[in-house]
Amino acid sequence: MKLFFEPQSGALIGASANKIRPGYHLFKNMQAGLGDRFYPVNPSMEEIEGVKCYKSILEIPETADVAVVFVPARSVPEVLEQCGQKGVKAVIIQSAGFEEVGGEGRELADQCLHVALKNNMRLWGPNCMGMINVPSQKVLSFMGSMWRNRLIPGSVALVVQSGMLSAGFLMHILSKKPFGLSKVCSIGNKMDVDEVDILEYLNNDPETKVMAMYLESMKRGRKFVELAKSTDKPIVVLKSGRTGFGAAAAKSHTAAMAQDDSVLDDALRQARVIRVYEMEEMMEVARCLALSPSKVTPKSRIAVLTFSGGAGVVCSDDAFDRGMEIARLEPETLARLKTVFPEWMDPSNPVDLYPAVEKNGPVKVFGTSLDAVLNDPNVDAVFMHLFAVPTPQDIFQYDLIAGLVQKYKKPLVAWMIGSAEAAAKISAELEKRGIPVVDEIGKGIRILAALTMRK
Amino acid sequence: MKLFFEPQSGALIGASANKIRPGYHLFKNMQAGLGDRFYPVNPSMEEIEGVKCYKSILEIPETADVAVVFVPARSVPEVLEQCGQKGVKAVIIQSAGFEEVGGEGRELADQCLHVALKNNMRLWGPNCMGMINVPSQKVLSFMGSMWRNRLIPGSVALVVQSGMLSAGFLMHILSKKPFGLSKVCSIGNKMDVDEVDILEYLNNDPETKVMAMYLESMKRGRKFVELAKSTDKPIVVLKSGRTGFGAAAAKSHTAAMAQDDSVLDDALRQARVIRVYEMEEMMEVARCLALSPSKVTPKSRIAVLTFSGGAGVVCSDDAFDRGMEIARLEPETLARLKTVFPEWMDPSNPVDLYPAVEKNGPVKVFGTSLDAVLNDPNVDAVFMHLFAVPTPQDIFQYDLIAGLVQKYKKPLVAWMIGSAEAAAKISAELEKRGIPVVDEIGKGIRILAALTMRK
Repeated sequence: MKLFFEPQSGALIGASANKIRPGYHLFKNMQAGLGDRFYPVNPSMEEIEGVKCYKSILEIPETADVAVVFVPARSVPEVLEQCGQKGVKAVIIQSAGFEEVGGEGRELADQCLHVALKNNMRLWGPNCMGMINVPSQKVLSFMGSMWRNRLIPGSVALVVQSGMLSAGFLMHILSKKPFGLSKVCSIGNKMDVDEVDILEYLNNDPETKVMAMYLESMKRGRKFVELAKSTDKPIVVLKSGRTGFGAAAAKSHTAAMAQDDSVLDDALRQARVIRVYEMEEMMEVARCLALSPSKVTPKSRIAVLTFSGGAGVVCSDDAFDRGMEIARLEPETLARLKTVFPEWMDPSNPVDLYPAVEKNGPVKVFGTSLDAVLNDPNVDAVFMHLFAVPTPQDIFQYDLIAGLVQKYKKPLVAWMIGSAEAAAKISAELEKRGIPVVDEIGKGIRILAALTMRK
Repeated sequence: MKLFFEPQSGALIGASANKIRPGYHLFKNMQAGLGDRFYPVNPSMEEIEGVKCYKSILEIPETADVAVVFVPARSVPEVLEQCGQKGVKAVIIQSAGFEEVGGEGRELADQCLHVALKNNMRLWGPNCMGMINVPSQKVLSFMGSMWRNRLIPGSVALVVQSGMLSAGFLMHILSKKPFGLSKVCSIGNKMDVDEVDILEYLNNDPETKVMAMYLESMKRGRKFVELAKSTDKPIVVLKSGRTGFGAAAAKSHTAAMAQDDSVLDDALRQARVIRVYEMEEMMEVARCLALSPSKVTPKSRIAVLTFSGGAGVVCSDDAFDRGMEIARLEPETLARLKTVFPEWMDPSNPVDLYPAVEKNGPVKVFGTSLDAVLNDPNVDAVFMHLFAVPTPQDIFQYDLIAGLVQKYKKPLVAWMIGSAEAAAKISAELEKRGIPVVDEIGKGIRILAALTMRK
């Protein structure tokens, strides 16, 4: 697997000089990462942008660590034979048109596997976008080359069983809420290399701290669960094809076979895999896990600090839906909250802070109440609502909040509504300090549910 | 009710000169809308910013159409007595500290109701943010006065049983995804005026085309359903306190009593009320209903046009979760899709367009396939995935898409992932043409579910 993730040399079979073709982006990306030891193959070209093209992989001057194949499906078995002949041990097939189209495609896939087996070669793909090693800038992917310099090295590894989707994820991450990535793996049909192989590698990868996976099938579920149990790194899984409709769609997409979802769900839960149900949720949870100094906990009695009784009610409904509890606060906690509340109001959970803030100002109220609930033994996690006003300088005590989370290590997610301009600023400050901030209550509850191992 | 919504004169009991107090924002807002016929009352002030203050409402030179009360709960009954004496028939109480705090608060509420009944006076609130008539710029609310000039007149009426939440909604709408509003009603504890009164008024309000309501209780459910049945204007309801936790929180918030949610759900469904479950969803659905030329339909067999097989799978799972179906396309539809597909690929629903786009370019593929699925009698609504690339000029045929939706009148929601910069631009273009665009699959499915009357 190391050849896939840390290649020192590589061939591209199917290089293109046409700037809108994937074969061109592959050319640019691989050239940038491999330099002199990059070998484009295209029998009808002499050179591309000054880089010599080879007629076939047989002609290149060394045995490349990895070969990336982007030629029509029908030609792939022959290309693989040549890779075998050359001694290449790691091949990424990015072309589509295999198992997912049935009939002839399935036959082609069988031929490819046969060639690989014969040559002791590992196959990654087909029908995928390949691999990106962010810290070492190795981009074995047809991802648009203009995106390359926007990649931020970090601790989240992304594994995606889909081609365009991984591109979409990536562009979304890079342009919307940038966070650091270690490896991005688009594994497509998983003809040979699958999520278990990847998980094994990432488990031992010092650059990866959190793994987020979009999967349409988990053929080696038992092995996956075993591995997941053996690691301390959080694993976030979005398994689609959960339902009849989804499974049918998955079959025609990556030829994934339907599985009994409830069996899988139990197994994943036992292995402490964090299961998510939407794509943005997957990215947010991974981002939060990488950000947050708090630990994942299997208990989920939450305290809600809110500026709006209404938001507290919606939050309580959502928490119930996801199998979480609204914590019963200890008398001492209530007594501490009462010290900042107006006389006519008794605190309860959700804790509606607005009247208290009106009376005592936000700094005192937020500090006292957040410390009180985090310190409560009945509280496992906190959902904090924030109201973004246009001049927030003196209101949000960023370091205070971050310090308390650091001290108690309980998961905390903040939800912010109000002025979008102010929210962006406050968000950035809090996230810099490891506090995840979301813009919808439901999203925050889903993240807290994930961090406390609920549905 | 007209006195509340279209007052020509008004008194503010509890005006403040302190710029961070709600009583000051009320002062600024009401002064802006009522001019000379605005009368601030504060016994300890001679004037505020050059406007004469009155010792009590008894001293003001006319019988105001409406009085807004923002004094401590304990003083409210007496103030109401004076309003009655003066002949004021519409009073909005924005102070908190009534039923929601129990005990003394409940007694105060009873006293208020008694005074109102005796004087044939309608009471709005308490514990609320009042009313904003956007087109006529009457702002009877302690909403921050700096937000006033950001209000956009439009066709959506917002009714919110919560104070801060309506402020939050409003700021969110105004600063994030601005859309036009007709009236904003924050109704708090609904001591007297409730959502039924408001619905009756809005039903006959020519400025309102869509109604969105956040409610914690629906005491007059039968009447509400009757009214909802009698109107063609879509009504979107987020009813919180659905669950045990939520109901408990609602009780301490607006003193709402628990109701059997499944009974309510059936009744709302019969009345074709569109039920939503999250706050952003409520705003998005309302926004889409105001935008979209398509009609709400009780059928929900959807076609999914996607650029990513993976997104198609997630979409199918989500559709299943919300009780929608993935449409079985007619043979003619499949044949038309096949004309733009590559040879090796047979179209199915979800329709994965990426290989077709690679072969035939986006304009031809999008035009053909969107027309094909909209024309299919088995398709009730369409979920269209778009991939935002950094240079989208020639890719998205905005008018083409809008024209097709206009022609077939079937609900269509677009989901876009990719470059955030490009997405913002494409979104704006499509939304200008009445096509709602969302940034999460789940959100899009929830909106389509709402537009097709599903869960």
